[in-house]
Amino acid sequence: MTSTRPYRITISDVARRAGVSPTTVSHALNGRGQVDPQTRQRVIEAAQELDYRPNRHAQRLRTGGASMIALMSSMPYAVAGGASRLGFLMEVASVAATSALERGLAMVLVPPLASGASPLDMLDIDGALLVEPSADDPQLASMIAKGLPVVSIGRPGSPDLDDVPCVDLRSAETVELLLGHMLEQDAQKIALVLGTAQRNSYMEAEDAYLRMISRTGRPDIRLRVDEACGEHGGREAAEQLLSTHPDIDAMLILVDAFAVGAAQYVQETGRRVPEDMLIATRYDGIRARTCEPALTAVNMHLDEVAQQATSLLFERLSGPVTNTRLLSPRPELVIRASTLRKAA
Amino acid sequence: MTSTRPYRITISDVARRAGVSPTTVSHALNGRGQVDPQTRQRVIEAAQELDYRPNRHAQRLRTGGASMIALMSSMPYAVAGGASRLGFLMEVASVAATSALERGLAMVLVPPLASGASPLDMLDIDGALLVEPSADDPQLASMIAKGLPVVSIGRPGSPDLDDVPCVDLRSAETVELLLGHMLEQDAQKIALVLGTAQRNSYMEAEDAYLRMISRTGRPDIRLRVDEACGEHGGREAAEQLLSTHPDIDAMLILVDAFAVGAAQYVQETGRRVPEDMLIATRYDGIRARTCEPALTAVNMHLDEVAQQATSLLFERLSGPVTNTRLLSPRPELVIRASTLRKAA
Repeated sequence: MTSTRPYRITISDVARRAGVSPTTVSHALNGRGQVDPQTRQRVIEAAQELDYRPNRHAQRLRTGGASMIALMSSMPYAVAGGASRLGFLMEVASVAATSALERGLAMVLVPPLASGASPLDMLDIDGALLVEPSADDPQLASMIAKGLPVVSIGRPGSPDLDDVPCVDLRSAETVELLLGHMLEQDAQKIALVLGTAQRNSYMEAEDAYLRMISRTGRPDIRLRVDEACGEHGGREAAEQLLSTHPDIDAMLILVDAFAVGAAQYVQETGRRVPEDMLIATRYDGIRARTCEPALTAVNMHLDEVAQQATSLLFERLSGPVTNTRLLSPRPELVIRASTLRKAA
Repeated sequence: MTSTRPYRITISDVARRAGVSPTTVSHALNGRGQVDPQTRQRVIEAAQELDYRPNRHAQRLRTGGASMIALMSSMPYAVAGGASRLGFLMEVASVAATSALERGLAMVLVPPLASGASPLDMLDIDGALLVEPSADDPQLASMIAKGLPVVSIGRPGSPDLDDVPCVDLRSAETVELLLGHMLEQDAQKIALVLGTAQRNSYMEAEDAYLRMISRTGRPDIRLRVDEACGEHGGREAAEQLLSTHPDIDAMLILVDAFAVGAAQYVQETGRRVPEDMLIATRYDGIRARTCEPALTAVNMHLDEVAQQATSLLFERLSGPVTNTRLLSPRPELVIRASTLRKAA
């Protein structure tokens, strides 16, 4: 696969349009060397017509300064920020920051702000890592519009964005692992709870779930919840599911904040987890591990994912790359008390 | 308390030495306005003699760019990086990054590198937050030498550095809480395990421990372990303590990585936690919560600490401040299974 977007106008494009050499473009735009005033004017016009922006990364390499990348979250504050902050984003951040520094890149951490504002315009960054962007993610759109290199952690939330370089998180495989395990534990009626945002991981999860439904003939029980509701959204999802389908005996809840809220609510109704209700989530983070009971989840190998993403971004900063999609390591099931019905 | 260090040479100092106004210094150094060539030369010499560096933060404010701060760890990779990365540093990072962005500062995350190298020289930062610097911390020394504003999270590891602005983490009070709780649980022989680095939290802990010893007449059993040994260091500490003092019935282990290793070793010898051995640590992070059994620890309110530190650094970037030390919120004991002997 080749990348056509984000396509960055280069100094060669400007040179071609102005009918001069790239060196002349560089001299003309940077005020160095001897350039005829008329030629300089032609170069400046060509650069303006093409909306050419000099490559900050290359400039910084020349001046010895560190290039700056941002790690941005596409999740709202209620999931990625707030009280339980040590989640997916920070696990990626800790490894990506180290991996970036080892390559001479400084990583600015851009967590979601409670105000919902994006600080992107104020940051003078050379590129960005973006965690699981939704189809309409404004930060991704802004990066693409500016021609700044961006790497998506997880495939972007729309096939239209498939040429954005990314680390594929194997979301279908992840959900197949979780559903397969629930079926092994004799789950009869499995509800799937997703966020409302248009994220690739939800789409792949939904497809995998529907394949399971059609293969096993089990009932199709799906619910979408606004991610901004956090744990409370999970409680409400569980309440709604149990009122419409009181005989559900398993819930696969992709967002860990939802899963924790749902586990609380389910147990408050007198149901036991896992005896009466299996509950599993995707990300094996502090929420899954400290939930009561601890939640079955998936080891997504985020340390390696963060390194893959950083190295992909580093390559892009250094020039065009042909390999625009890397596959994450295979997800591994982490079975915990919340789904161990047979052992119970 | 007033701060005398890090003292930053200001434009006023240069003006005084050159015998001109600050505005003239600014014009002379920035090539603006009308400045007599001899005056300009005098200003340049004065600036060189004083090793004056223009305030990047102020410059960035003028040009509309975001000032850049770093969050640096003083802990080695084995404790703050590596496998269990979601610790103290990242908990501070998640809040500090948000708090910084809300003030127009970009926060670069500078985790410890496995190589031990410091990337400080390559980063064009305006100031830094430094977590629990030891007495000989090279990053702190470098920041001070450059006259860059720095705020220490926790008091610096030497009284010589007491004029470095900091958020005091109330380490004595923290250890008093933990020791008091262990005594209430009938601990007879309490060992104290510290890191070998010269950190303020260890010094305050040791003082509090010695006060307890002299007050209660209990035996003095202390051990220091190199932080770079991580969990393995904790295992070895427990082994050494049990071979020299087989009748120890409580271990207060400040570094959470040590505590987890020690808990494993203690239980492998056939001792039960908490029935035969109480174990507690300081930082209530993912390691304490997911240890088997979960470890009693202290809520240090790191979210508020991170905000205090960021706001202190922000003030310093904006000019001299009189208040150079803030007190963290009161630590709160979080009692978990690892010390609940009486309930067992």
